[in-house]
Amino acid sequence: MTTAILFGGASYEHEISIVSAIALKKVMKKRPIFIFLDAKGDFYHIPDEQMKSDHFSSGGYKKNDRLHLARGGFEKRGLLKSKKLEGFDVVLNLIHGGQGEDGTIAALLDFYDIAYIGPRKEASVISYNKWLTKLYAEGIGVETVEYQLLHMDDKREIDFGYPIIVKPLRLGSSIGVSIVKSEEDLDFALDVAFEFDEEVLIEPFIEGVEEYNVAGCRLGEKWIFSRIEAPKKSEFLDFDQKYLDFSRTESVQEADIPDSLESDLKDTFKKVYDKTFDGALIRCDFFFASGEIMLNEINPIPGSMANYLFDDFNGVLERLASHLPKQRTIRPDYAYIDKVQSAKGPKAR
Amino acid sequence: MTTAILFGGASYEHEISIVSAIALKKVMKKRPIFIFLDAKGDFYHIPDEQMKSDHFSSGGYKKNDRLHLARGGFEKRGLLKSKKLEGFDVVLNLIHGGQGEDGTIAALLDFYDIAYIGPRKEASVISYNKWLTKLYAEGIGVETVEYQLLHMDDKREIDFGYPIIVKPLRLGSSIGVSIVKSEEDLDFALDVAFEFDEEVLIEPFIEGVEEYNVAGCRLGEKWIFSRIEAPKKSEFLDFDQKYLDFSRTESVQEADIPDSLESDLKDTFKKVYDKTFDGALIRCDFFFASGEIMLNEINPIPGSMANYLFDDFNGVLERLASHLPKQRTIRPDYAYIDKVQSAKGPKAR
Repeated sequence: MTTAILFGGASYEHEISIVSAIALKKVMKKRPIFIFLDAKGDFYHIPDEQMKSDHFSSGGYKKNDRLHLARGGFEKRGLLKSKKLEGFDVVLNLIHGGQGEDGTIAALLDFYDIAYIGPRKEASVISYNKWLTKLYAEGIGVETVEYQLLHMDDKREIDFGYPIIVKPLRLGSSIGVSIVKSEEDLDFALDVAFEFDEEVLIEPFIEGVEEYNVAGCRLGEKWIFSRIEAPKKSEFLDFDQKYLDFSRTESVQEADIPDSLESDLKDTFKKVYDKTFDGALIRCDFFFASGEIMLNEINPIPGSMANYLFDDFNGVLERLASHLPKQRTIRPDYAYIDKVQSAKGPKAR
Repeated sequence: MTTAILFGGASYEHEISIVSAIALKKVMKKRPIFIFLDAKGDFYHIPDEQMKSDHFSSGGYKKNDRLHLARGGFEKRGLLKSKKLEGFDVVLNLIHGGQGEDGTIAALLDFYDIAYIGPRKEASVISYNKWLTKLYAEGIGVETVEYQLLHMDDKREIDFGYPIIVKPLRLGSSIGVSIVKSEEDLDFALDVAFEFDEEVLIEPFIEGVEEYNVAGCRLGEKWIFSRIEAPKKSEFLDFDQKYLDFSRTESVQEADIPDSLESDLKDTFKKVYDKTFDGALIRCDFFFASGEIMLNEINPIPGSMANYLFDDFNGVLERLASHLPKQRTIRPDYAYIDKVQSAKGPKAR
C-alpha cells in the first residue's frame, strides 16, 4: 500500500503539519507521495528529496507541480490535457488543525471520491470544537472536566476558582492556551485566546492530575490500541514544547499502570471512537483523578500520527486503509418529480 | 444582488432540491443564475429557460455547460483556457439533505472562497445528525422530545410506550420516517429507516401536540423573523405530502397565538441560531405541549427557503448576503520551523 501524505493547509498548525510530514517520511517503510496544501489553498506534488522544512518556508515549493482535485484523485493540468497523479492507494490527511480537522479536508476528499485515512466530517466537527467535544462526551457517557464558555462579547466573569485553563474553542496543539493562576492574569490570557477564536473554553486547572494518552482505531469488529503513554511533562506543555512533539519518531515506554486502569482507558477510548471516528487513527488524551477517567481531548490527526506509540506503525496504517468507511451511492430515479411539478403547493396541503 | 442558486446534489432529497429551485425561480425578483450539481458530482450551468423538472429527469442537463470549482467561483474549462462564470454575487446553497446539509457544500464553498448563503460546516453537522441536534439543544438549554438511539446491529428494544416515531438519524424531509402504533409494526418501520441510515432515532409520538414553524436569520445585532406558521396537517406529513411543501410559493397566514408564546418561540429560535447558524436562513420547527416549547427540527436549508413565510423574501436574502460570516485568513510566517527541525523530538521533552 502506498500513501499520499496530505499536509500543510490554512491553519495555525500549518508549520507543525510540515514537521509531522517530515517525521513520517522517516518512519514509513514504503515511500509515500507528498502532497502539500499551501495556505492559499493550492496543492503541490513535493518530490521526496525536497521534503525539508526550508523548501516550504522559502516558497521553493511553488516551483513544484501544481495539483488539482479531480474525481478519484489529483491531476496535473497540462496545456492540452490533464494527467492523473498515479502511484498511491490512499491519502493520509496530516493537516493538523484548521482545514484538516474542521471537516474541510474530509468534505473535499469525500466529494471527490478519494479514499483517505482521517476523521470524517462529523468526527472532525465534534473533535475540533471543544464545546461539541464536551456535549458528545456527555452523550456517550464519558466524563470530562467541568467548563464554561465565554464569547469575546461576554462579560469576563469566571465560574471557577483559580488556577484555571483558558483555551480557544477551536484550536489544537496548545496554541493560545494559558494557565491562569490569579485574576490579574485573566485579561491577558483571554486577549491571547481571543486572537484565535471568538469563543474560549475555560476549565478549572486540576493540579497533579495523572495524564494518559492512547492512540488507536477500529477495524470492523477489532480494535488496535497503541501503548499507553503517561506524558512526563512540566506543569503544562506550551506550544513550543508540544510543537516538538510533532517531530517525534522514537518510541516511548508503556505507562506503568494497573491492568484495570489500562482496560478502563481502552474501554473509554472505544466509547469515544465508536463508529464516529471510523477511518481515522486518533489519539485520546485522558485525565485520571480520584479514580475517575475524564476525556481531555480527542486528536483526530495526532502529531506525526502518534507513530512513536505503536510497535508496528506501518502495519496499523495498512490495516486501517483496508477498513475505511464507504460512502453511500445515491442515484435519484426522478420518480417523484413530475408528480410534484403538476401539483400546487398550498392547495395540496 | 444576483444569486447563484446551487441545487441538486447526491442526496435522497435530490429531486426536491430541483423542485425547490424551480419554486424560487418564481419568487426571486432579480433573475438568479442556476447551478446544478448532479448525483455524480458534476456541476452544470442551467439556462433560465431550461429550469423545468424534465430537463433533469431526462438527463438533458448534460448538454449544458460543465462548471468546475475554482478559487472565488466556478469556471468553464475551454480547450486552451478557462473562463470564470460571471454575473452573481453570492451562492445560495439550496441542496437539501445529503451533501447540502451534511457540511460538504459548506466546506467546498469555504475552501474555494465562494461567498454563500447557507449553514457553515458546524451548523450543518449539528442540524443534519438528529442526535447531535439533541446534544446541541441540551447544551444551549432548549428542550427536545426524549429519545433513544438504535444502531442496526442493536437489539430492537424500545424504551417507550407506543405510538413512537422512527427516524433515520441523518435525513430530512420525512424520508424513511414512520409512526409506529404497536409493536407488530416496529420491524417494518425499522427496516425502512435502516435503508437510509445505520442509526435511527426513536421518540415517543406526542398526540395532539401543537406545532409552530419559524424561519429567520441574524444580521449582526438584528434579527429577522418570518411569520409563525402553525402547519395544518393530517397526523403526520409523509414524504409525498411534505415533498409538495418544497414547491410552495404562496404565502401563509400568521398563526393565531398569544404574544407571549410568539415571543417565547422567537427567543428559542435565537438560542438555536445563536452564532452557529450565521450566514444561513433557517427554519426551526417547534412543538408546544404542556406550556413547554420543544425543538423538533432545525432545517438549515428549508424547502424553497421558506419564502412563503416572509413578506419581503427578496429583501431578507439581500440583507443576509451582506452579513455573511468571514473566514479568517491565516498566513504562516514559518518562524518556528527551523527551530523545530534542528531539535530532536524525544530529547526535547
